[in-house]
Amino acid sequence: MTDSTPKNLSYKDAGVDIEAADHFVSTIAQIAKATHTSDVVPGKTAYAGLVRPPLEGLNDPLIAATCDGVGTKLILARDAGIYRGLGQDLVAMNVNDLLPAGAKPLLFLDYIATGKLDPDALTEVVTGVADACKLAGCSLLGGETAEMPGVYRDGDFDLAGFSVGLVDANRIPDSTQIKEGDVLLGLPSSGVHSNGYSLVRKALFEQGGLSLDHVPEGWDQSLATVALEPTRIYVKEVLSALSQHEVKAAAHITGGGILGRAAKIIPTTMRETLGLHFNSAAYDIPKIFGLIQKCGNITDEEMARTFNMGLGFIIVVSPLVAESLIATDETWLKVGTVIKRSGDTPGVELGYARG
Amino acid sequence: MTDSTPKNLSYKDAGVDIEAADHFVSTIAQIAKATHTSDVVPGKTAYAGLVRPPLEGLNDPLIAATCDGVGTKLILARDAGIYRGLGQDLVAMNVNDLLPAGAKPLLFLDYIATGKLDPDALTEVVTGVADACKLAGCSLLGGETAEMPGVYRDGDFDLAGFSVGLVDANRIPDSTQIKEGDVLLGLPSSGVHSNGYSLVRKALFEQGGLSLDHVPEGWDQSLATVALEPTRIYVKEVLSALSQHEVKAAAHITGGGILGRAAKIIPTTMRETLGLHFNSAAYDIPKIFGLIQKCGNITDEEMARTFNMGLGFIIVVSPLVAESLIATDETWLKVGTVIKRSGDTPGVELGYARG
Repeated sequence: MTDSTPKNLSYKDAGVDIEAADHFVSTIAQIAKATHTSDVVPGKTAYAGLVRPPLEGLNDPLIAATCDGVGTKLILARDAGIYRGLGQDLVAMNVNDLLPAGAKPLLFLDYIATGKLDPDALTEVVTGVADACKLAGCSLLGGETAEMPGVYRDGDFDLAGFSVGLVDANRIPDSTQIKEGDVLLGLPSSGVHSNGYSLVRKALFEQGGLSLDHVPEGWDQSLATVALEPTRIYVKEVLSALSQHEVKAAAHITGGGILGRAAKIIPTTMRETLGLHFNSAAYDIPKIFGLIQKCGNITDEEMARTFNMGLGFIIVVSPLVAESLIATDETWLKVGTVIKRSGDTPGVELGYARG
Repeated sequence: MTDSTPKNLSYKDAGVDIEAADHFVSTIAQIAKATHTSDVVPGKTAYAGLVRPPLEGLNDPLIAATCDGVGTKLILARDAGIYRGLGQDLVAMNVNDLLPAGAKPLLFLDYIATGKLDPDALTEVVTGVADACKLAGCSLLGGETAEMPGVYRDGDFDLAGFSVGLVDANRIPDSTQIKEGDVLLGLPSSGVHSNGYSLVRKALFEQGGLSLDHVPEGWDQSLATVALEPTRIYVKEVLSALSQHEVKAAAHITGGGILGRAAKIIPTTMRETLGLHFNSAAYDIPKIFGLIQKCGNITDEEMARTFNMGLGFIIVVSPLVAESLIATDETWLKVGTVIKRSGDTPGVELGYARG
């Protein structure tokens, strides 16, 4: 062989180790299999996952589908070396998005892309995904793991999730039924959830100069632990409410924050006459929001347009249904009411007591 | 205001411009809407897309779901500034994966993540996605656009796709019916498709020192144009074959290449006695593969374990069905046969004439 002979290239030389990837894929296949409900039809092809949709009792079955990622929360997770919660974040962002349509989660798929496969970190992520699928009652049907040297740096990665659910067309919440005097019931968030992390990082770590292992005064956990608290999964509470009561509207509080999401609850044609009034004394605002606001010197409105501010999910019901729901499941909080709106009053009043 | 007053931060300061993102999202919503079939149920919630699955005539309907990306082909596209074909690649990689289960594509969702939104480039991608959804007969139901400064550099991005299809359980190809003498029918690939691009880039541009605008001798197109040729969508040909004939097995030639994918066509329990023989004279091997192999000094086996080598989709049928299919649709090529296997013969013989 002379110097002019070109190097004999293999796919592995190009930065992609198919054998290592295959090993990882077979590990996570076992983890995924443990989530499979009896709806899953196993082993028919190596290409697509198959599920037998439970159609009994549905008069007009619709398929609902969502797609979402976890945003830059994964940068925090990488920096802290804490990966499992991201799996729950990914599932939660998707299955919670099925709920406003009244859809019951059926299946989930994940896309994981990375520069160089770190099997330990990504096995943690997938374990978190699988545990969360069990919480949401859906099967982790499959997914894709892509090694993409040149797009992602070695330790970097991204996650995308997809979920599919089923709903009977006549069981979809109908927001045109909302009336003055209706009640806003809310479910508490577990913290920042998975939106607004570019601002979280800029406020706390750049401008605030704090470190991930910092324990703020009066807290009993590090900033990393609190900032990485997984997004709550609301499937159980919301499906239970939907199955027993008329729910007129439902909102998952994500991008756009409590203010942006609440503003869309009332149908466009009714927004001139109806508004939402929140009673912020009725629910806790997790302490991390105060710290973010202080470090970033962020206005109340910008906070409310970026973060959930303590409420992860909201439904609109009649006063009677509200009483009944609160009596049987105390996780529901009465957080506000539908009010008459006229003139220049805002469509959503958050009702903060300004200091 | 003194120097010690912290800067008043907004989400936009943190690198995320929600208004610009909203504008992009409303642009692509229009593009997506043009793909919607009458199955789509519009406007019920802002969270999940809804589709009424066409269940008529299905005795035992199953939902098939896939998830895939386009790999590092997007690095080439970015470098060449040619984005539209990536949209077709993304759809093709997913909907072609539904076909081995016999499933008809129903809906598609896309995940686009980037460092900083480049509306022109990403509108091209989404336009390509929408056009490809029309080709595949499925609705672009929704998706997610994520700006993630800190994960992706400004011009970098990633794409993930997700498709859902429907199949009647008793119409899924049954590979246990494969017999000696059955015929391998193949559909030509349009080029490299969307697998193995890390090796493509390493061979052609690093080791080979070629440039994207180079026109190799005897070619009438630049390397960029040929290397970025979109992945073919095989929905029409394969669904037509499936609806009229018994198809015993089907394979989409993706990761693992023609050798890796063909090796999995015969069921595990039958692999000791049956093998596949390809007649490589029966189909063209696109000229880009020769160039990649030469520049990278890559072995025949490594090529065949990485690339489709000219065949994008393969089915196994009886000789009688093969005659009938070829007579009615000349895109199907008779590319090989199922042979008896004994002793030490390989499970897949590609039958290249070695020079």
